[in-house]
Amino acid sequence: MSCPLCDAPAGTVLWQDDFCRVVRADEPDYPGFLRVILNAHVKEMSDLPPAEREALMRVVFAAEAALRDVMAPDKVNLASLGNVVPHLHWHVIPRFADDPHFPNPVWGAKQRNAPHAAPGNLDIRLVAEFSRLLAPGPGTGSR
Amino acid sequence: MSCPLCDAPAGTVLWQDDFCRVVRADEPDYPGFLRVILNAHVKEMSDLPPAEREALMRVVFAAEAALRDVMAPDKVNLASLGNVVPHLHWHVIPRFADDPHFPNPVWGAKQRNAPHAAPGNLDIRLVAEFSRLLAPGPGTGSR
Repeated sequence: MSCPLCDAPAGTVLWQDDFCRVVRADEPDYPGFLRVILNAHVKEMSDLPPAEREALMRVVFAAEAALRDVMAPDKVNLASLGNVVPHLHWHVIPRFADDPHFPNPVWGAKQRNAPHAAPGNLDIRLVAEFSRLLAPGPGTGSR
Repeated sequence: MSCPLCDAPAGTVLWQDDFCRVVRADEPDYPGFLRVILNAHVKEMSDLPPAEREALMRVVFAAEAALRDVMAPDKVNLASLGNVVPHLHWHVIPRFADDPHFPNPVWGAKQRNAPHAAPGNLDIRLVAEFSRLLAPGPGTGSR
């Protein structure tokens, strides 16, 4: 069966290894909306062995840290839903008091129209953060 | 400043240790809606040291596993938002194709009215699952 996360990167790839990738989503209301996508068609976190759950969360938390360093959001939202696309992916969303849905979830009722302005060179700065935060240690491989 | 997650359990406590608690939320549309709540007023996952992030996620994934064993949902949704209450808490939500919002997030547009029926003795069965899944190993303490 066709799966949009198996068939395509589904965003601008900012970091990847064999296990997962981080993409910046094409979400005009949320310029820094990242997704951490497992490179395998698995449905639930509890379908992964514990070491792989931990490896995936390490990347999710690095995405949170990268967004905090580059964008200084008022809050970060993390979510793994997958009701429509049951292939493990985490939404990592920088939230601002003046963003379109705040304080609602981005899936809730819209409160205003303009996105919170993103800093210049967003992709380049995030790529640099991921390289710094997820650099493999000596002998530890790419995870 | 007053915080509703510092001041009260915020649900029926199904499992707890010194570090965090699991409560069944009072959400009539979602009988198995669980929350994993840190027992400290911390805002973001990346504010915790890595070992505590991992300890909290271990409980989140146990909540997912417990719900799968007891309710066999079509999907589990996990989310840490905290825009309104910036005290770390994870929503762990069993989703069913016939639940009120499916396939939307529970914060999205409602699709139908009746909740998916919960099995009998839900609390008791979940408590038993948590005891089984989170029992401390010999000498490892309660985390």
